[in-house]
Amino acid sequence: MSPPLASRVRDLRPTAVNRVLAEVRAAQARGVRTVSLMRGEPDLPTPAHIVEAAARSLRDGRTGYPDNRGELAYREAVALKLERDNRLRYDPATEILATSGATFGIYAALMAVLDPGGEVLLPDPIYDAYASPIRLAGGVPVRVPCPLRGLRFELHAEAVAGQITARTRALLLNTPWNPTGTVFGEGELRAIARVVMERNLWLLSDEIYEAFTYGGARHLSPVAAAPELRPRTILINALSKAYSMTGWRVGYCAAPPEVASAMLLVLQQSSRGPATFVQDAATEALRGAQDAVEAMRRDYDARRALVLERLAGMSACHPLPPEGGFFVMASLAPSGCTSDEVRRRLLEEHGVVVIHGAAYGACGEGTLRVSFAAGGEALSEGLARLRAGLEAIAAE
Amino acid sequence: MSPPLASRVRDLRPTAVNRVLAEVRAAQARGVRTVSLMRGEPDLPTPAHIVEAAARSLRDGRTGYPDNRGELAYREAVALKLERDNRLRYDPATEILATSGATFGIYAALMAVLDPGGEVLLPDPIYDAYASPIRLAGGVPVRVPCPLRGLRFELHAEAVAGQITARTRALLLNTPWNPTGTVFGEGELRAIARVVMERNLWLLSDEIYEAFTYGGARHLSPVAAAPELRPRTILINALSKAYSMTGWRVGYCAAPPEVASAMLLVLQQSSRGPATFVQDAATEALRGAQDAVEAMRRDYDARRALVLERLAGMSACHPLPPEGGFFVMASLAPSGCTSDEVRRRLLEEHGVVVIHGAAYGACGEGTLRVSFAAGGEALSEGLARLRAGLEAIAAE
Repeated sequence: MSPPLASRVRDLRPTAVNRVLAEVRAAQARGVRTVSLMRGEPDLPTPAHIVEAAARSLRDGRTGYPDNRGELAYREAVALKLERDNRLRYDPATEILATSGATFGIYAALMAVLDPGGEVLLPDPIYDAYASPIRLAGGVPVRVPCPLRGLRFELHAEAVAGQITARTRALLLNTPWNPTGTVFGEGELRAIARVVMERNLWLLSDEIYEAFTYGGARHLSPVAAAPELRPRTILINALSKAYSMTGWRVGYCAAPPEVASAMLLVLQQSSRGPATFVQDAATEALRGAQDAVEAMRRDYDARRALVLERLAGMSACHPLPPEGGFFVMASLAPSGCTSDEVRRRLLEEHGVVVIHGAAYGACGEGTLRVSFAAGGEALSEGLARLRAGLEAIAAE
Repeated sequence: MSPPLASRVRDLRPTAVNRVLAEVRAAQARGVRTVSLMRGEPDLPTPAHIVEAAARSLRDGRTGYPDNRGELAYREAVALKLERDNRLRYDPATEILATSGATFGIYAALMAVLDPGGEVLLPDPIYDAYASPIRLAGGVPVRVPCPLRGLRFELHAEAVAGQITARTRALLLNTPWNPTGTVFGEGELRAIARVVMERNLWLLSDEIYEAFTYGGARHLSPVAAAPELRPRTILINALSKAYSMTGWRVGYCAAPPEVASAMLLVLQQSSRGPATFVQDAATEALRGAQDAVEAMRRDYDARRALVLERLAGMSACHPLPPEGGFFVMASLAPSGCTSDEVRRRLLEEHGVVVIHGAAYGACGEGTLRVSFAAGGEALSEGLARLRAGLEAIAAE
């Protein structure tokens, strides 16, 4: 017999990806052959010059403890990147922190600003792995409804204001926005900034998909759009998506000195940041040639076009063209089925794996998230199955 | 103006090493030349076959997301190691978790078992970076006094029992024990186990120094000494010390399935574990030839002998021969000075950096912690300064 576990554990949920993966494994065990359009994991390799930088650093014996804030050279590279790509100036000595991925950056940010019962506003639908870290930090996730407007999910300042209570502490933004594909424009960000300022909220800005925008959309950091946000903003990013470095677990945060120091205290007691030689490789990624990123962006752009083309002209659904990120949301024509039921039937009867929009919040109901993070044969075959499956389900 | 930070941040303290480091930097800025006998960081390089395993894995493209529990091959290597070195059997599928260092293992364990206000018993003196993670997890550290008995700090079962209240949830053990150098024997562990069983506590067992024991002492895992502890024990370890891999940030936990699952939920929302290719290198470390570990152990044993010899025959202090770990505690002869005052004078007047025993708890007062994790000229020079400094201070 074990003693009881902490009650907080009861409030945590595996991510949608993990839940769906368990179902996929069960289906595979029953003999279903599956093709996945599910994960936000790039199938492109980490560019060779970054891999070589890690191998060199390892052989140079860069295997001792890193600086708890992150190696200075890495923090300087982050500062350079923020100025070059985002028109933001942060002091590497006091305002930048190396984190093991954006996941830890978000967690450390929440731990630094949330007291028990503090509410965090989350646009709905949104990446489902924000709610559990908020609960883990003692907070309460509160949804801001963002119904689909035409072909775009939008976050309106009035909707944000409408969910604010005396306990609201922070708004979490993700731009480009997973799963919707919306990239916030300057006017939108300025309108949201006004509410954040007036109501004295923290802004947590997760910008992990910034490198991949399409058409006329360009990533704009909220602090660049509204510099008055700077003292209350924690910028969170990682190299996972932009440099195909998901498995390296390396990211960073930028925040005013007192916030960065608070996050450092949390980090020292719980993680200690990325491996030393991983930080060296990340320094090379941020400072070195950026051609590989643009080459990847073009690859994703072509995949995006393929998804939109293969899902065009259907009566069962219409695709929403994303402005950024790795996902196309497919808006389902009204039927008696929930998005989760459609997802399950696509898996069981057609062997194609997508995630139901409802996994991302109530406003995601009626959609499916289709990932183009993986391309090639898997994407073509997956899209063929998805189209055939959706048509078969609609024809019943 | 920023909104207020979380109140929990006020309860967190930088570690003693970080505080002393800040003083060292200030002294260096004033022109003091320093030699350090402070940190628990091995100066030996990571063995070459482990470095090569990482480089190979990187070039093989092992850069995608790892399994959240840890790569199966790594978990299997951990299971093999636990059986080979510790006579413990854990199921890699359900009972082992990869963590980014022992630091995250301890944190995830605390988050999985502590509710707000839950008390965790800590032997005193002990590694000072356990208290803040306990507070971060909402708990309260409670000290179990362990006064020096002759040349050895000991943890007595009655002392543990004496600190238990209705709110006590766990006992944290560290064997070999930092900073004292005590390695718990079978009888000691069985006596402590009886209290843990009777009072229905969790046992968190941090075994990070296990590879380095001296004289007749041998590491014994608490669960091997008292198998009845298994359902209530979370074993925490990392490769940092045994394989000179501090900067790699790779460790593991072993615990019953429901505990490992609870810790996995915490990990998924906050860290996601070590880099994929780091896990491959760690697999090689655990499965490959262990000669390098024994060679390092002999190196540390020789350094330990040097420290004991250089501090022998003094009236100002006598060294306590450690049974394990990287540290010799020097017991100071009674004087009007606290250990912190002696430490400061050694730094300011003699340029040698050690940590005062009081940093590890009230029962550490009257001692200094002398690290032999680094050797060579720094160790010889540091010991000469330490001896001269202590004699000069005592002669006043």
